[in-house]
Amino acid sequence: MTDTLSSRFLVFVLGIPGILLAIYFGGFFFTLFITIVCILALREFYDLMKNKEAFPQYTIGLLSCVFISLYYHHYFPDVFTFIPIHSFFIVLIILVMTVELFRNKDQATLNIIITLGGILYIPLLLSSLIAIRNFHSPDDVLGMQLTFSLFISVWLCDTAAYSFGKKWGRKKIMERVSPTKTVVGTAAGAITALITYQVFIETGFFNTTSQISALTNVDGIVLGIVVGVFGQVGDFIESLIKRDVGVKDSSGFLLGHGGVLDRFDSLLLASPLTYLYLTHFV
Amino acid sequence: MTDTLSSRFLVFVLGIPGILLAIYFGGFFFTLFITIVCILALREFYDLMKNKEAFPQYTIGLLSCVFISLYYHHYFPDVFTFIPIHSFFIVLIILVMTVELFRNKDQATLNIIITLGGILYIPLLLSSLIAIRNFHSPDDVLGMQLTFSLFISVWLCDTAAYSFGKKWGRKKIMERVSPTKTVVGTAAGAITALITYQVFIETGFFNTTSQISALTNVDGIVLGIVVGVFGQVGDFIESLIKRDVGVKDSSGFLLGHGGVLDRFDSLLLASPLTYLYLTHFV
Repeated sequence: MTDTLSSRFLVFVLGIPGILLAIYFGGFFFTLFITIVCILALREFYDLMKNKEAFPQYTIGLLSCVFISLYYHHYFPDVFTFIPIHSFFIVLIILVMTVELFRNKDQATLNIIITLGGILYIPLLLSSLIAIRNFHSPDDVLGMQLTFSLFISVWLCDTAAYSFGKKWGRKKIMERVSPTKTVVGTAAGAITALITYQVFIETGFFNTTSQISALTNVDGIVLGIVVGVFGQVGDFIESLIKRDVGVKDSSGFLLGHGGVLDRFDSLLLASPLTYLYLTHFV
Repeated sequence: MTDTLSSRFLVFVLGIPGILLAIYFGGFFFTLFITIVCILALREFYDLMKNKEAFPQYTIGLLSCVFISLYYHHYFPDVFTFIPIHSFFIVLIILVMTVELFRNKDQATLNIIITLGGILYIPLLLSSLIAIRNFHSPDDVLGMQLTFSLFISVWLCDTAAYSFGKKWGRKKIMERVSPTKTVVGTAAGAITALITYQVFIETGFFNTTSQISALTNVDGIVLGIVVGVFGQVGDFIESLIKRDVGVKDSSGFLLGHGGVLDRFDSLLLASPLTYLYLTHFV
Protein backbone atom coordinates (compact mmCIF):
# COMPACT_ATOMS: atom_id res chain seq x y z
CA MET A 1 0.00 0.00 0.00
CA THR A 2 2.74 2.48 0.97
CA ASP A 3 4.70 1.19 -2.01
CA THR A 4 1.79 1.87 -4.32
CA LEU A 5 1.23 5.27 -2.77
CA SER A 6 4.84 6.32 -3.13
CA SER A 7 5.05 5.03 -6.69
CA ARG A 8 1.76 6.77 -7.48
CA PHE A 9 3.37 9.92 -6.16
CA LEU A 10 6.53 9.34 -8.22
CA VAL A 11 4.55 8.93 -11.47
CA PHE A 12 2.67 12.11 -10.60
CA VAL A 13 5.79 14.14 -9.76
CA LEU A 14 7.65 12.99 -12.89
CA GLY A 15 4.65 12.77 -15.20
CA ILE A 16 3.00 16.18 -14.96
CA PRO A 17 6.16 18.31 -15.26
CA GLY A 18 7.40 15.96 -18.00
CA ILE A 19 4.26 16.54 -20.06
CA LEU A 20 4.34 20.30 -19.46
CA LEU A 21 7.98 20.49 -20.54
CA ALA A 22 7.23 18.48 -23.69
CA ILE A 23 4.40 20.90 -24.51
CA TYR A 24 6.67 23.88 -23.84
CA PHE A 25 9.53 22.68 -26.03
CA GLY A 26 7.27 21.36 -28.79
CA GLY A 27 8.81 20.37 -32.13
CA PHE A 28 10.59 17.04 -32.34
CA PHE A 29 10.53 16.64 -28.54
CA PHE A 30 6.74 16.77 -28.26
CA THR A 31 6.28 14.57 -31.36
CA LEU A 32 8.56 11.95 -29.83
CA PHE A 33 6.69 12.11 -26.52
CA ILE A 34 3.29 11.58 -28.19
CA THR A 35 4.68 8.81 -30.39
CA ILE A 36 5.89 6.95 -27.32
CA VAL A 37 2.51 7.43 -25.61
CA CYS A 38 0.77 6.05 -28.73
CA ILE A 39 3.07 3.04 -28.92
CA LEU A 40 2.53 2.20 -25.23
CA ALA A 41 -1.24 2.73 -25.45
CA LEU A 42 -1.56 0.70 -28.65
CA ARG A 43 0.42 -2.15 -27.11
CA GLU A 44 -1.97 -2.08 -24.14
CA PHE A 45 -4.95 -2.15 -26.50
CA TYR A 46 -3.54 -5.14 -28.39
CA ASP A 47 -2.78 -6.89 -25.09
CA LEU A 48 -6.39 -6.31 -23.98
CA MET A 49 -7.60 -7.94 -27.20
CA LYS A 50 -5.84 -11.17 -26.28
CA ASN A 51 -8.88 -11.69 -24.06
CA LYS A 52 -10.80 -12.03 -27.35
CA GLU A 53 -8.40 -14.83 -28.37
CA ALA A 54 -6.93 -12.58 -31.06
CA PHE A 55 -3.32 -12.22 -32.21
CA PRO A 56 -2.87 -8.63 -33.43
CA GLN A 57 0.13 -7.71 -35.61
CA TYR A 58 2.10 -5.70 -33.06
CA THR A 59 5.01 -4.65 -35.26
CA ILE A 60 2.89 -3.16 -38.03
CA GLY A 61 0.72 -1.39 -35.47
CA LEU A 62 3.67 0.14 -33.65
CA LEU A 63 5.38 1.25 -36.88
CA SER A 64 2.11 2.90 -37.90
CA CYS A 65 2.33 5.05 -34.76
CA VAL A 66 5.62 6.43 -36.03
CA PHE A 67 4.27 7.09 -39.51
CA ILE A 68 1.08 8.77 -38.30
CA SER A 69 3.03 10.97 -35.88
CA LEU A 70 5.26 12.10 -38.75
CA TYR A 71 2.17 12.81 -40.82
CA TYR A 72 0.72 15.07 -38.12
CA HIS A 73 4.11 16.63 -37.45
CA HIS A 74 4.22 17.87 -41.05
CA TYR A 75 0.53 18.62 -41.19
CA PHE A 76 0.24 22.33 -40.71
CA PRO A 77 3.31 23.48 -42.61
CA ASP A 78 2.37 21.42 -45.70
CA VAL A 79 -1.32 20.61 -45.25
CA PHE A 80 -2.23 17.23 -46.80
CA THR A 81 0.63 17.18 -49.25
CA PHE A 82 3.73 15.97 -47.49
CA ILE A 83 2.54 12.46 -46.73
CA PRO A 84 -0.79 11.41 -48.23
CA ILE A 85 -2.44 9.63 -45.31
CA HIS A 86 -5.00 8.14 -47.66
CA SER A 87 -2.30 6.33 -49.67
CA PHE A 88 -0.71 5.22 -46.41
CA PHE A 89 -3.95 3.62 -45.23
CA ILE A 90 -4.51 1.77 -48.51
CA VAL A 91 -1.02 0.29 -48.30
CA LEU A 92 -1.49 -0.46 -44.60
CA ILE A 93 -4.81 -2.28 -45.07
CA ILE A 94 -3.45 -4.40 -47.92
CA LEU A 95 -0.24 -5.10 -45.99
CA VAL A 96 -2.02 -6.23 -42.82
CA MET A 97 -4.36 -8.53 -44.79
CA THR A 98 -1.52 -10.00 -46.85
CA VAL A 99 0.66 -10.63 -43.80
CA GLU A 100 -2.27 -12.36 -42.11
CA LEU A 101 -2.60 -14.68 -45.09
CA PHE A 102 0.84 -16.11 -44.32
CA ARG A 103 0.60 -16.16 -40.51
CA ASN A 104 -1.38 -19.35 -40.08
CA LYS A 105 -3.00 -18.13 -36.87
CA ASP A 106 -6.55 -18.68 -35.69
CA GLN A 107 -9.06 -15.83 -35.83
CA ALA A 108 -7.60 -14.32 -39.01
CA THR A 109 -10.42 -11.82 -39.48
CA LEU A 110 -10.21 -10.58 -35.90
CA ASN A 111 -6.43 -10.27 -36.11
CA ILE A 112 -6.76 -8.06 -39.18
CA ILE A 113 -9.49 -5.79 -37.88
CA ILE A 114 -8.03 -5.51 -34.39
CA THR A 115 -4.65 -4.53 -35.84
CA LEU A 116 -6.31 -1.88 -38.04
CA GLY A 117 -8.91 -0.87 -35.45
CA GLY A 118 -6.23 -0.16 -32.85
CA ILE A 119 -4.45 2.10 -35.33
CA LEU A 120 -7.68 4.01 -35.98
CA TYR A 121 -8.49 4.25 -32.28
CA ILE A 122 -5.11 5.30 -30.90
CA PRO A 123 -2.49 6.93 -33.17
CA LEU A 124 -4.92 8.32 -35.76
CA LEU A 125 -6.91 10.04 -33.00
CA LEU A 126 -4.31 10.81 -30.33
CA SER A 127 -1.42 11.96 -32.52
CA SER A 128 -3.59 14.85 -33.68
CA LEU A 129 -2.13 16.46 -30.53
CA ILE A 130 1.04 16.89 -32.59
CA ALA A 131 -0.81 18.87 -35.24
CA ILE A 132 -2.39 21.03 -32.53
CA ARG A 133 1.04 21.69 -30.99
CA ASN A 134 2.38 22.63 -34.44
CA PHE A 135 -0.66 24.76 -35.31
CA HIS A 136 0.50 27.18 -38.03
CA SER A 137 4.15 26.31 -37.40
CA PRO A 138 6.24 24.28 -34.95
CA ASP A 139 7.51 27.53 -33.39
CA ASP A 140 4.11 29.12 -33.07
CA VAL A 141 3.20 30.17 -29.53
CA LEU A 142 -0.50 29.63 -30.28
CA GLY A 143 0.11 25.89 -30.81
CA MET A 144 1.70 25.70 -27.37
CA GLN A 145 -1.14 27.68 -25.76
CA LEU A 146 -3.78 25.47 -27.41
CA THR A 147 -2.07 22.26 -26.33
CA PHE A 148 -1.48 23.52 -22.81
CA SER A 149 -5.09 24.67 -22.36
CA LEU A 150 -6.34 21.35 -23.73
CA PHE A 151 -4.35 19.31 -21.21
CA ILE A 152 -5.26 21.63 -18.32
CA SER A 153 -8.97 21.56 -19.08
CA VAL A 154 -8.95 17.75 -19.44
CA TRP A 155 -7.17 17.41 -16.09
CA LEU A 156 -9.48 19.89 -14.33
CA CYS A 157 -12.53 18.20 -15.90
CA ASP A 158 -11.38 14.79 -14.61
CA THR A 159 -10.59 16.18 -11.16
CA ALA A 160 -13.92 18.00 -10.84
CA ALA A 161 -15.86 14.95 -12.06
CA TYR A 162 -14.11 12.78 -9.50
CA SER A 163 -14.35 15.19 -6.55
CA PHE A 164 -17.94 16.38 -7.07
CA GLY A 165 -19.02 12.84 -7.90
CA LYS A 166 -17.46 11.48 -4.75
CA LYS A 167 -18.96 14.17 -2.51
CA TRP A 168 -22.41 14.79 -4.00
CA GLY A 169 -22.87 12.15 -6.67
CA ARG A 170 -25.61 9.63 -6.06
CA LYS A 171 -27.38 8.73 -9.29
CA LYS A 172 -25.14 6.70 -11.63
CA ILE A 173 -25.01 8.02 -15.19
CA MET A 174 -24.31 4.77 -17.06
CA GLU A 175 -23.87 1.99 -14.55
CA ARG A 176 -23.67 -0.72 -17.24
CA VAL A 177 -20.46 0.83 -18.59
CA SER A 178 -18.88 2.56 -15.62
CA PRO A 179 -20.20 1.76 -12.14
CA THR A 180 -18.53 4.70 -10.40
CA LYS A 181 -19.47 7.66 -12.60
CA THR A 182 -22.37 9.80 -11.44
CA VAL A 183 -24.62 12.39 -13.06
CA VAL A 184 -23.41 15.10 -10.70
CA GLY A 185 -19.74 14.28 -11.29
CA THR A 186 -20.12 14.22 -15.07
CA ALA A 187 -22.02 17.52 -15.09
CA ALA A 188 -19.40 19.10 -12.80
CA GLY A 189 -16.65 17.93 -15.17
CA ALA A 190 -18.39 19.40 -18.22
CA ILE A 191 -19.04 22.73 -16.52
CA THR A 192 -15.45 22.90 -15.27
CA ALA A 193 -14.09 22.37 -18.81
CA LEU A 194 -16.34 25.15 -20.12
CA ILE A 195 -15.26 27.55 -17.35
CA THR A 196 -11.58 26.69 -17.82
CA TYR A 197 -11.57 27.82 -21.44
CA GLN A 198 -13.46 31.03 -20.59
CA VAL A 199 -10.94 31.79 -17.84
CA PHE A 200 -8.06 31.25 -20.28
CA ILE A 201 -9.69 33.60 -22.80
CA GLU A 202 -10.70 36.30 -20.30
CA THR A 203 -7.27 36.40 -18.65
CA GLY A 204 -5.68 37.03 -22.04
CA PHE A 205 -3.86 33.68 -22.22
CA PHE A 206 -4.44 33.43 -25.97
CA ASN A 207 -3.64 37.08 -26.64
CA THR A 208 -1.54 37.80 -29.70
CA THR A 209 1.11 40.52 -29.83
CA SER A 210 -1.66 42.96 -30.82
CA GLN A 211 -3.47 42.15 -27.53
CA ILE A 212 -6.42 40.46 -29.25
CA SER A 213 -7.38 36.96 -28.11
CA ALA A 214 -6.70 34.40 -30.86
CA LEU A 215 -9.76 32.51 -29.63
CA THR A 216 -13.19 34.09 -29.27
CA ASN A 217 -15.58 33.26 -26.42
CA VAL A 218 -17.54 31.13 -28.90
CA ASP A 219 -14.38 29.17 -29.74
CA GLY A 220 -13.99 28.67 -25.99
CA ILE A 221 -17.52 27.30 -25.68
CA VAL A 222 -16.94 24.85 -28.54
CA LEU A 223 -13.60 23.65 -27.16
CA GLY A 224 -15.12 23.47 -23.66
CA ILE A 225 -17.85 21.19 -24.98
CA VAL A 226 -15.28 19.12 -26.87
CA VAL A 227 -13.36 18.49 -23.65
CA GLY A 228 -16.26 18.49 -21.19
CA VAL A 229 -18.60 16.28 -23.20
CA PHE A 230 -16.52 14.30 -25.73
CA GLY A 231 -13.53 13.99 -23.41
CA GLN A 232 -15.80 12.26 -20.91
CA VAL A 233 -17.39 10.19 -23.70
CA GLY A 234 -13.83 9.04 -24.49
CA ASP A 235 -13.53 7.97 -20.89
CA PHE A 236 -16.78 5.99 -21.12
CA ILE A 237 -15.70 4.35 -24.39
CA GLU A 238 -12.50 3.11 -22.86
CA SER A 239 -14.51 1.76 -19.90
CA LEU A 240 -16.84 0.04 -22.38
CA ILE A 241 -13.89 -1.67 -24.08
CA LYS A 242 -12.31 -2.73 -20.79
CA ARG A 243 -15.64 -4.00 -19.48
CA ASP A 244 -16.16 -5.91 -22.73
CA VAL A 245 -12.84 -7.74 -22.30
CA GLY A 246 -13.26 -8.02 -18.53
CA VAL A 247 -10.40 -5.99 -17.08
CA LYS A 248 -10.25 -2.96 -14.79
CA ASP A 249 -7.08 -1.14 -15.86
CA SER A 250 -5.58 -1.10 -19.37
CA SER A 251 -2.27 -2.14 -17.75
CA GLY A 252 -0.25 -1.62 -14.56
CA PHE A 253 2.36 0.40 -16.46
CA LEU A 254 1.85 3.64 -14.51
CA LEU A 255 1.73 1.77 -11.19
CA GLY A 256 -1.15 3.15 -9.11
CA HIS A 257 -2.37 5.21 -12.09
CA GLY A 258 -3.39 2.26 -14.26
CA GLY A 259 -2.20 2.08 -17.84
CA VAL A 260 -1.21 4.67 -20.39
CA LEU A 261 -4.51 4.16 -22.21
CA ASP A 262 -6.37 4.93 -18.95
CA ARG A 263 -4.53 8.25 -18.59
CA PHE A 264 -5.14 9.37 -22.18
CA ASP A 265 -8.69 8.13 -22.77
CA SER A 266 -10.27 11.61 -22.62
CA LEU A 267 -7.65 13.03 -24.98
CA LEU A 268 -8.34 10.23 -27.47
CA LEU A 269 -11.57 12.04 -28.39
CA ALA A 270 -10.88 15.59 -27.21
CA SER A 271 -7.68 16.01 -29.27
CA PRO A 272 -8.92 15.02 -32.76
CA LEU A 273 -12.10 17.05 -32.30
CA THR A 274 -10.11 20.09 -31.16
CA TYR A 275 -7.84 19.57 -34.14
CA LEU A 276 -10.82 19.34 -36.54
CA TYR A 277 -12.31 22.51 -35.10
CA LEU A 278 -9.01 24.37 -35.44
CA THR A 279 -8.48 23.10 -39.00
CA HIS A 280 -11.91 23.88 -40.34
CA PHE A 281 -13.17 26.80 -38.25
CA VAL A 282 -10.37 28.85 -36.65
CA MET B 1 -29.73 -27.80 -61.01
CA THR B 2 -31.26 -26.54 -64.27
CA ASP B 3 -32.66 -23.65 -62.28
CA THR B 4 -29.25 -22.79 -60.93
CA LEU B 5 -27.69 -23.10 -64.37
CA SER B 6 -30.25 -20.85 -66.03
CA SER B 7 -30.05 -18.27 -63.26
CA ARG B 8 -26.24 -18.47 -63.44
CA PHE B 9 -26.61 -17.74 -67.14
CA LEU B 10 -29.00 -14.87 -66.47
CA VAL B 11 -26.61 -13.18 -64.01
CA PHE B 12 -23.83 -13.63 -66.57
CA VAL B 13 -25.85 -12.24 -69.49
CA LEU B 14 -27.10 -9.23 -67.53
CA GLY B 15 -23.99 -8.72 -65.39
CA ILE B 16 -21.14 -8.46 -67.88
CA PRO B 17 -22.83 -6.06 -70.36
CA GLY B 18 -24.18 -4.06 -67.42
CA ILE B 19 -20.69 -3.55 -66.02
CA LEU B 20 -19.28 -2.71 -69.45
CA LEU B 21 -22.02 -0.14 -70.06
CA ALA B 22 -21.40 1.43 -66.64
CA ILE B 23 -17.69 1.70 -67.48
CA TYR B 24 -18.51 3.17 -70.90
CA PHE B 25 -20.91 5.84 -69.61
CA GLY B 26 -18.79 6.66 -66.54
CA GLY B 27 -19.66 9.76 -64.51
CA PHE B 28 -22.57 9.54 -62.10
CA PHE B 29 -23.72 6.25 -63.64
CA PHE B 30 -20.48 4.39 -62.86
CA THR B 31 -20.24 5.99 -59.39
CA LEU B 32 -23.76 4.82 -58.60
CA PHE B 33 -22.97 1.32 -59.84
CA ILE B 34 -19.84 1.01 -57.67
CA THR B 35 -21.66 2.49 -54.66
CA ILE B 36 -24.36 -0.18 -54.96
CA VAL B 37 -21.71 -2.90 -55.28
CA CYS B 38 -19.97 -1.58 -52.14
CA ILE B 39 -23.23 -1.46 -50.19
CA LEU B 40 -24.12 -5.03 -51.15
CA ALA B 41 -20.61 -6.32 -50.46
CA LEU B 42 -20.35 -4.52 -47.11
CA ARG B 43 -23.72 -5.92 -46.07
CA GLU B 44 -22.44 -9.40 -46.92
CA PHE B 45 -19.28 -8.78 -44.90
CA TYR B 46 -21.31 -7.64 -41.88
CA ASP B 47 -23.61 -10.65 -42.27
CA LEU B 48 -20.58 -12.95 -42.30
CA MET B 49 -19.39 -11.39 -39.05
CA LYS B 50 -22.56 -12.49 -37.32
CA ASN B 51 -20.78 -15.85 -37.14
CA LYS B 52 -18.40 -14.09 -34.73
CA GLU B 53 -21.40 -13.17 -32.53
CA ALA B 54 -20.94 -9.51 -33.47
CA PHE B 55 -23.58 -6.84 -34.18
CA PRO B 56 -22.05 -4.39 -36.69
CA GLN B 57 -23.61 -0.95 -37.18
CA TYR B 58 -25.11 -1.50 -40.65
CA THR B 59 -26.55 1.98 -41.21
CA ILE B 60 -23.33 3.86 -40.52
CA GLY B 61 -21.38 1.39 -42.66
CA LEU B 62 -23.74 1.71 -45.61
CA LEU B 63 -23.83 5.53 -45.40
CA SER B 64 -20.04 5.51 -45.38
CA CYS B 65 -20.12 3.76 -48.77
CA VAL B 66 -21.99 6.74 -50.17
CA PHE B 67 -19.59 9.27 -48.65
CA ILE B 68 -16.46 7.46 -49.76
CA SER B 69 -17.82 7.07 -53.31
CA LEU B 70 -18.44 10.81 -53.44
CA TYR B 71 -14.93 11.41 -52.17
CA TYR B 72 -13.42 9.33 -54.97
CA HIS B 73 -15.83 10.81 -57.50
CA HIS B 74 -14.41 14.27 -56.79
CA TYR B 75 -10.89 13.04 -56.35
CA PHE B 76 -9.12 13.82 -59.57
CA PRO B 77 -10.77 17.14 -60.39
CA ASP B 78 -10.02 18.55 -56.93
CA VAL B 79 -7.34 16.26 -55.46
CA PHE B 80 -7.62 15.98 -51.65
CA THR B 81 -9.42 19.24 -51.16
CA PHE B 82 -13.08 18.74 -51.92
CA ILE B 83 -13.82 16.34 -49.09
CA PRO B 84 -11.04 15.78 -46.55
CA ILE B 85 -11.18 12.01 -46.08
CA HIS B 86 -9.00 12.31 -43.00
CA SER B 87 -11.57 14.53 -41.25
CA PHE B 88 -14.31 12.14 -42.36
CA PHE B 89 -12.55 9.19 -40.74
CA ILE B 90 -11.99 11.01 -37.45
CA VAL B 91 -15.70 11.85 -37.26
CA LEU B 92 -16.63 8.31 -38.34
CA ILE B 93 -14.46 6.61 -35.71
CA ILE B 94 -15.79 8.82 -32.92
CA LEU B 95 -19.37 8.40 -34.14
CA VAL B 96 -19.18 4.59 -34.29
CA MET B 97 -17.67 4.41 -30.79
CA THR B 98 -20.18 6.85 -29.32
CA VAL B 99 -23.16 5.06 -30.89
CA GLU B 100 -21.86 1.76 -29.51
CA LEU B 101 -21.79 3.29 -26.03
CA PHE B 102 -25.58 3.67 -26.15
CA ARG B 103 -26.43 0.39 -27.91
CA ASN B 104 -26.25 -1.94 -24.94
CA LYS B 105 -25.17 -4.89 -27.10
CA ASP B 106 -22.69 -7.62 -26.27
CA GLN B 107 -19.26 -7.63 -27.88
CA ALA B 108 -18.98 -3.83 -27.95
CA THR B 109 -15.33 -3.81 -29.03
CA LEU B 110 -15.94 -6.25 -31.88
CA ASN B 111 -18.98 -4.30 -33.05
CA ILE B 112 -16.90 -1.13 -33.28
CA ILE B 113 -13.91 -2.62 -35.07
CA ILE B 114 -16.00 -4.79 -37.42
CA THR B 115 -18.05 -1.75 -38.42
CA LEU B 116 -14.89 0.27 -39.08
CA GLY B 117 -12.91 -2.68 -40.49
CA GLY B 118 -15.61 -3.39 -43.08
CA ILE B 119 -15.47 0.23 -44.22
CA LEU B 120 -11.68 0.02 -44.60
CA TYR B 121 -11.86 -3.33 -46.41
CA ILE B 122 -14.67 -2.62 -48.86
CA PRO B 123 -15.60 0.97 -49.80
CA LEU B 124 -12.21 2.52 -49.03
CA LEU B 125 -10.48 -0.02 -51.27
CA LEU B 126 -13.09 -0.82 -53.93
CA SER B 127 -14.47 2.67 -54.58
CA SER B 128 -11.02 3.68 -55.81
CA LEU B 129 -12.41 2.27 -59.09
CA ILE B 130 -14.39 5.51 -59.29
CA ALA B 131 -11.22 7.60 -59.12
CA ILE B 132 -9.66 5.40 -61.82
CA ARG B 133 -12.72 5.87 -64.05
CA ASN B 134 -12.53 9.64 -63.49
CA PHE B 135 -8.75 9.76 -63.98
CA HIS B 136 -7.93 13.38 -64.97
CA SER B 137 -11.63 14.16 -65.54
CA PRO B 138 -14.98 12.34 -65.63
CA ASP B 139 -15.06 12.75 -69.42
CA ASP B 140 -11.54 11.55 -69.98
CA VAL B 141 -11.24 8.58 -72.33
CA LEU B 142 -8.11 7.38 -70.54
CA GLY B 143 -10.13 6.78 -67.36
CA MET B 144 -12.50 4.58 -69.32
CA GLN B 145 -9.63 2.69 -70.96
CA LEU B 146 -7.90 2.12 -67.63
CA THR B 147 -11.07 0.85 -65.95
CA PHE B 148 -11.96 -1.36 -68.91
CA SER B 149 -8.49 -2.91 -69.10
CA LEU B 150 -8.51 -3.50 -65.33
CA PHE B 151 -11.80 -5.42 -65.41
CA ILE B 152 -10.79 -7.40 -68.52
CA SER B 153 -7.42 -8.42 -67.09
CA VAL B 154 -9.02 -9.45 -63.77
CA TRP B 155 -11.59 -11.55 -65.60
CA LEU B 156 -9.00 -13.16 -67.90
CA CYS B 157 -6.72 -13.79 -64.91
CA ASP B 158 -9.55 -15.53 -63.04
CA THR B 159 -10.56 -17.55 -66.09
CA ALA B 160 -6.99 -18.63 -66.84
CA ALA B 161 -6.34 -19.55 -63.21
CA TYR B 162 -9.49 -21.65 -63.13
CA SER B 163 -9.01 -23.36 -66.52
CA PHE B 164 -5.28 -24.10 -66.26
CA GLY B 165 -5.67 -25.11 -62.64
CA LYS B 166 -8.47 -27.52 -63.48
CA LYS B 167 -6.61 -29.09 -66.41
CA TRP B 168 -2.98 -29.17 -65.26
CA GLY B 169 -3.00 -28.08 -61.64
CA ARG B 170 -1.96 -30.67 -59.12
CA LYS B 171 0.04 -29.08 -56.29
CA LYS B 172 -2.13 -26.87 -54.09
CA ILE B 173 -0.70 -23.42 -53.46
CA MET B 174 -2.22 -22.70 -50.03
CA GLU B 175 -4.51 -25.54 -49.07
CA ARG B 176 -5.15 -24.17 -45.57
CA VAL B 177 -6.84 -21.10 -47.06
CA SER B 178 -8.24 -22.25 -50.39
CA PRO B 179 -8.38 -25.99 -51.06
CA THR B 180 -9.00 -25.69 -54.81
CA LYS B 181 -6.31 -23.24 -55.95
CA THR B 182 -3.18 -24.73 -57.49
CA VAL B 183 0.32 -23.47 -58.22
CA VAL B 184 -0.16 -23.95 -61.96
CA GLY B 185 -3.50 -22.13 -61.99
CA THR B 186 -2.19 -19.18 -59.97
CA ALA B 187 0.90 -18.86 -62.17
CA ALA B 188 -1.26 -19.04 -65.31
CA GLY B 189 -3.49 -16.29 -63.92
CA ALA B 190 -0.55 -14.03 -63.16
CA ILE B 191 1.02 -14.55 -66.60
CA THR B 192 -2.33 -13.94 -68.31
CA ALA B 193 -2.76 -10.61 -66.50
CA LEU B 194 0.74 -9.55 -67.55
CA ILE B 195 0.13 -10.53 -71.19
CA THR B 196 -3.28 -8.83 -71.24
CA TYR B 197 -1.81 -5.43 -70.38
CA GLN B 198 0.99 -5.82 -72.95
CA VAL B 199 -1.58 -6.74 -75.63
CA PHE B 200 -3.62 -3.64 -74.74
CA ILE B 201 -0.52 -1.45 -75.01
CA GLU B 202 0.86 -3.01 -78.20
CA THR B 203 -2.48 -2.85 -80.02
CA GLY B 204 -2.66 0.88 -79.30
CA PHE B 205 -5.62 0.65 -76.92
CA PHE B 206 -4.22 3.41 -74.71
CA ASN B 207 -3.14 5.59 -77.61
CA THR B 208 -3.81 9.28 -77.27
CA THR B 209 -4.85 11.52 -80.16
CA SER B 210 -1.16 11.97 -80.96
CA GLN B 211 -0.83 8.16 -81.42
CA ILE B 212 1.42 7.73 -78.37
CA SER B 213 0.41 5.13 -75.80
CA ALA B 214 -0.56 6.81 -72.50
CA LEU B 215 0.93 3.78 -70.73
CA THR B 216 4.47 2.53 -71.31
CA ASN B 217 5.36 -1.16 -71.36
CA VAL B 218 6.77 -0.73 -67.85
CA ASP B 219 3.42 0.69 -66.67
CA GLY B 220 1.87 -2.43 -68.21
CA ILE B 221 4.20 -4.72 -66.28
CA VAL B 222 3.40 -2.95 -62.99
CA LEU B 223 -0.36 -3.05 -63.59
CA GLY B 224 -0.08 -6.67 -64.76
CA ILE B 225 1.62 -7.57 -61.46
CA VAL B 226 -0.99 -5.60 -59.53
CA VAL B 227 -3.79 -7.64 -61.12
CA GLY B 228 -1.95 -10.94 -61.54
CA VAL B 229 -0.38 -11.09 -58.09
CA PHE B 230 -2.35 -8.76 -55.77
CA GLY B 231 -5.68 -9.48 -57.46
CA GLN B 232 -5.17 -13.14 -56.64
CA VAL B 233 -3.97 -12.27 -53.13
CA GLY B 234 -7.32 -10.44 -52.75
CA ASP B 235 -9.02 -13.68 -53.72
CA PHE B 236 -7.03 -15.59 -51.08
CA ILE B 237 -7.79 -12.98 -48.42
CA GLU B 238 -11.51 -13.27 -49.01
CA SER B 239 -11.16 -17.08 -48.80
CA LEU B 240 -9.26 -16.65 -45.53
CA ILE B 241 -12.08 -14.55 -44.08
CA LYS B 242 -14.80 -16.94 -45.24
CA ARG B 243 -12.87 -19.93 -43.94
CA ASP B 244 -12.38 -18.14 -40.61
CA VAL B 245 -16.13 -17.67 -40.19
CA GLY B 246 -16.92 -21.08 -41.69
CA VAL B 247 -18.87 -20.32 -44.89
CA LYS B 248 -18.28 -21.11 -48.57
CA ASP B 249 -19.91 -18.17 -50.40
CA SER B 250 -20.22 -14.60 -49.11
CA SER B 251 -23.95 -14.86 -49.92
CA GLY B 252 -26.31 -16.42 -52.47
CA PHE B 253 -27.16 -13.01 -53.92
CA LEU B 254 -25.80 -13.70 -57.41
CA LEU B 255 -27.42 -17.16 -57.46
CA GLY B 256 -24.91 -19.66 -58.87
CA HIS B 257 -22.16 -17.02 -58.77
CA GLY B 258 -21.97 -16.72 -54.99
CA GLY B 259 -22.14 -13.28 -53.40
CA VAL B 260 -21.16 -9.81 -54.55
CA LEU B 261 -18.05 -9.94 -52.36
CA ASP B 262 -16.99 -13.18 -54.10
CA ARG B 263 -17.20 -11.52 -57.51
CA PHE B 264 -15.22 -8.43 -56.52
CA ASP B 265 -12.57 -9.94 -54.23
CA SER B 266 -9.72 -9.53 -56.76
CA LEU B 267 -10.70 -5.94 -57.50
CA LEU B 268 -10.67 -5.16 -53.76
CA LEU B 269 -6.86 -5.20 -53.93
CA ALA B 270 -6.21 -4.63 -57.63
CA SER B 271 -8.20 -1.36 -57.83
CA PRO B 272 -6.65 0.63 -54.97
CA LEU B 273 -3.15 -0.44 -56.00
CA THR B 274 -3.82 0.55 -59.61
CA TYR B 275 -5.19 3.83 -58.32
CA LEU B 276 -2.09 4.43 -56.15
CA TYR B 277 0.20 3.70 -59.09
CA LEU B 278 -1.73 6.08 -61.34
CA THR B 279 -1.79 8.81 -58.69
CA HIS B 280 1.86 8.70 -57.75
CA PHE B 281 3.65 7.42 -60.84
CA VAL B 282 1.73 8.05 -64.08
